[in-house]
Amino acid sequence: MNTSTALLVADLTGVAVFAASGASAGVAKRLDLFGVVFVGFVAALGGGIFRDLVIDEVPPLAFADWRYATTAVATAGAVFWLHPHLARLRTTVLVLDAAGLGLFTVTGTTLALAAGVPAVGSCLIGMLTGIGGGLGRDLLTGEIPVVLRSEIYAVAALLGAAVVTALDGAGVTGAAPLVGAAVLIFGIRLVALRRRWAAPVATGEPLPARRHGRTP
Amino acid sequence: MNTSTALLVADLTGVAVFAASGASAGVAKRLDLFGVVFVGFVAALGGGIFRDLVIDEVPPLAFADWRYATTAVATAGAVFWLHPHLARLRTTVLVLDAAGLGLFTVTGTTLALAAGVPAVGSCLIGMLTGIGGGLGRDLLTGEIPVVLRSEIYAVAALLGAAVVTALDGAGVTGAAPLVGAAVLIFGIRLVALRRRWAAPVATGEPLPARRHGRTP
Amino acid sequence: MNTSTALLVADLTGVAVFAASGASAGVAKRLDLFGVVFVGFVAALGGGIFRDLVIDEVPPLAFADWRYATTAVATAGAVFWLHPHLARLRTTVLVLDAAGLGLFTVTGTTLALAAGVPAVGSCLIGMLTGIGGGLGRDLLTGEIPVVLRSEIYAVAALLGAAVVTALDGAGVTGAAPLVGAAVLIFGIRLVALRRRWAAPVATGEPLPARRHGRTP
Repeated sequence: MNTSTALLVADLTGVAVFAASGASAGVAKRLDLFGVVFVGFVAALGGGIFRDLVIDEVPPLAFADWRYATTAVATAGAVFWLHPHLARLRTTVLVLDAAGLGLFTVTGTTLALAAGVPAVGSCLIGMLTGIGGGLGRDLLTGEIPVVLRSEIYAVAALLGAAVVTALDGAGVTGAAPLVGAAVLIFGIRLVALRRRWAAPVATGEPLPARRHGRTP
Repeated sequence: MNTSTALLVADLTGVAVFAASGASAGVAKRLDLFGVVFVGFVAALGGGIFRDLVIDEVPPLAFADWRYATTAVATAGAVFWLHPHLARLRTTVLVLDAAGLGLFTVTGTTLALAAGVPAVGSCLIGMLTGIGGGLGRDLLTGEIPVVLRSEIYAVAALLGAAVVTALDGAGVTGAAPLVGAAVLIFGIRLVALRRRWAAPVATGEPLPARRHGRTP
Repeated sequence: MNTSTALLVADLTGVAVFAASGASAGVAKRLDLFGVVFVGFVAALGGGIFRDLVIDEVPPLAFADWRYATTAVATAGAVFWLHPHLARLRTTVLVLDAAGLGLFTVTGTTLALAAGVPAVGSCLIGMLTGIGGGLGRDLLTGEIPVVLRSEIYAVAALLGAAVVTALDGAGVTGAAPLVGAAVLIFGIRLVALRRRWAAPVATGEPLPARRHGRTP
């Protein structure tokens, strides 16, 4: 299996994993079959759609290549029917989700750099490619995005995106460094899960709600 | 009245209907006049704006043709002032909404195919054109999108989009088949409403919230 | 300091102000450091990203010019650490927010007109540039957007956008009229805050929730 095939397989694996996380959220919210599949679709492909829009890669890959949507829909449908048996797969899903985060962040950063986006912007686009699907999933299911509330998740993505951008700036090319960056994100995320690392939360009293409510 | 005029009239009718549904949601949430009009605007034009962004038709029609925004704003404003008298129009609104769904889905699918988007992607874009406005309306008003929770709605749109795509692939052209597909969506939606058809909901215990909460 | 430098300084001031409002909302919701910074980023740059997508200015300025993201992130981070001391700055933040609204609306309208968007569309894009960040901030923090619920805010932006468009149509050019329009928005917003002006809310009973719930 050559490189591009390997990349496609890895990419579709990420799609399937994020689709499963989205579908699980939909099932937990008692959405109907369509709702579960739709949230799975958004979780799997939302980040990439945003990425493609901001780098002017239209139509986005999610619509241009049928294999992406098909993988997302099939996985989400499977979760809908099988979810009672998935409880014991919780750890597996978390590990695969960490792998998907690493992969999507690296591909997003690489595509942004290839589109001529400057370094800082490419890091942000890469991170948003990795976390965008989860953000969409949580907004659709009425949750404040978990990525904003707890754990080292987006930060791991941002670090990996910065590594990809730095290597690109240094003229380092080839698949190896990209794989390395994805593994770095994957590893940070796993260690953060295991050690329950979390970003700090502001100390002191929260600001009264109406205060920022008055600052549209 | 020639074809293009008929199409524009039909299109603006769909805009008005979705604007009314959005404005009704805004009134129910006690939004102010601007909020009611804004939610009406998003419900009427949000799906089309997304469609135009993903097929690179910029600026989106909602901004390029003043008649769309004007129709949406005028309708939403009318709902704001007249809503106490609209209760008895509930059935009418549901029927018109079904008509709007059929129309927007067919036009969205057709435009995506014309832009060179492959079959599966065009079906998805067509469906999203039909349901996107309602998604935006529900997100703005703090609801989990109703299209994800109940009833045959998006599924009707997806079926119609598939028919349009299949006819296009078969080389069938002209307005008649498109009208037929829109009528199909319209009919499925009306029967689903009348018979209270709904997509299945996952059986068994929902997954504990923190489970997917831990899978950003 | 020449005009373009002055404009950049003013623009980044608007970014900082909106980032502060977003970060304040994030702190109030007990988001972690990343969440606070991310909401600040969206509040500061979300409106401009939407603007650039609809006028096909890609990659959006938020990703193309590192100074924008850096300003937003640094400001949001400062709010995260300093927020207990910010309570007494409430009035200052409201005033700066009004200034940011004026600036973003005027620049958004001007860029839309320059991109060839017709008058009505340019007014809408300009208004959305001014209010878009606040909408994103409220959606991310699980609030019905405050701009839809209370006060003269978007209406002030829309008036200013209409003035910019009218002047453009009349062939009036130069920085002075743009500054005037921004000052107009700024002034209307301040007076509205001082006098507690608000847009009207629909009278009578709100529509039953399930009514619009049945009209996706």
